[in-house]
Amino acid sequence: MPTLEFWYEYASTYSYLSVMRIEEAARVARVALRWRPFLLGPIFNAQGWDTSPFNLFPEKGAYMWRDMDRLCQARGLPFRPPSPFPQNGLYAARLTLLGAEEGWAPRFSRAVFTAQFAHGLQLANKQALGNSLEALGLDSKALLARIDEPDVKSALKAQTEQAQGLGIFGAPSFVTEDGELFWGDDRLEQALLWAKGEG
Amino acid sequence: MPTLEFWYEYASTYSYLSVMRIEEAARVARVALRWRPFLLGPIFNAQGWDTSPFNLFPEKGAYMWRDMDRLCQARGLPFRPPSPFPQNGLYAARLTLLGAEEGWAPRFSRAVFTAQFAHGLQLANKQALGNSLEALGLDSKALLARIDEPDVKSALKAQTEQAQGLGIFGAPSFVTEDGELFWGDDRLEQALLWAKGEG
Repeated sequence: MPTLEFWYEYASTYSYLSVMRIEEAARVARVALRWRPFLLGPIFNAQGWDTSPFNLFPEKGAYMWRDMDRLCQARGLPFRPPSPFPQNGLYAARLTLLGAEEGWAPRFSRAVFTAQFAHGLQLANKQALGNSLEALGLDSKALLARIDEPDVKSALKAQTEQAQGLGIFGAPSFVTEDGELFWGDDRLEQALLWAKGEG
Repeated sequence: MPTLEFWYEYASTYSYLSVMRIEEAARVARVALRWRPFLLGPIFNAQGWDTSPFNLFPEKGAYMWRDMDRLCQARGLPFRPPSPFPQNGLYAARLTLLGAEEGWAPRFSRAVFTAQFAHGLQLANKQALGNSLEALGLDSKALLARIDEPDVKSALKAQTEQAQGLGIFGAPSFVTEDGELFWGDDRLEQALLWAKGEG
């Protein structure tokens, strides 16, 4: 079965759209997924940006919020803009790396994205993330105790550097086994076709 | 019949995709079109950019060229990156305003975009634009004589300011009668549905 890498950032609004539908879309397409959370912050910093381009460029930001409203409504997804925006996805991304080892990364990602965009979950709040872990039947105390460990920190750093090395500049992004990069939730179908050699 | 405004810029790669398919898509959807060329330069300048973001942000630029390659191949469109990029769309946009009065704006737009992206037409070259006019059976001498007239200059300026007033920050963009803004060739279908009240 071909594999598609799914690169996403917890603070990213458009990543929410893909997180909520990619597992089903990949199942139908018979493509395996690798869930690869990373941080956009360092990548934006390298472009001279100190926050989201949606904050830096107000017209683009206003459009994004309206676009997300329309798309979430069409897909039956709840959507409330997080405050502040962007949230800090650092802890959630590190936890997801632990989840990738143990097989619960996709479930955790969907739970945290939903909590962020439906219920105002603060991503920087460890206790709130702990609640999301508990709701999935996971040991939040043991997991939260690991998120500041050097190997977990360096694993996320390495993953973000790998994203940069692949030419990734935004989220969500999809990378096929032959290195083809697709950017944006609206490229998911095209990425799945390409992964199967039907692009 | 509902109407959709089609805002595009001659230097814009993704505008090429929409210019080549929007008339047929709108015909099938039973939506009337208003072709509204404008200039992105002043809008980019207002954001502090002195050239295309695809030049300012190299990863984004590299992605765009590859994305355009893939999309044009899938759609059977020729595609060669213009050199230099971006081209200066000023004269082509002014001519299109004259064409809007006389009903040849869509044909002229398709001809000029194709010449730019298939055959390396230099948009700043008045004689080359004249050849495109002649090929459509138009009086290039009379039309080129008008493009530096004050009323033509101010009409394009007003159109660009109107784009800015609508919140437009990129091209192609689509605006419905109720003021809904859609950005990007991949939003064309959604914009047509919205125009019909089915969004």
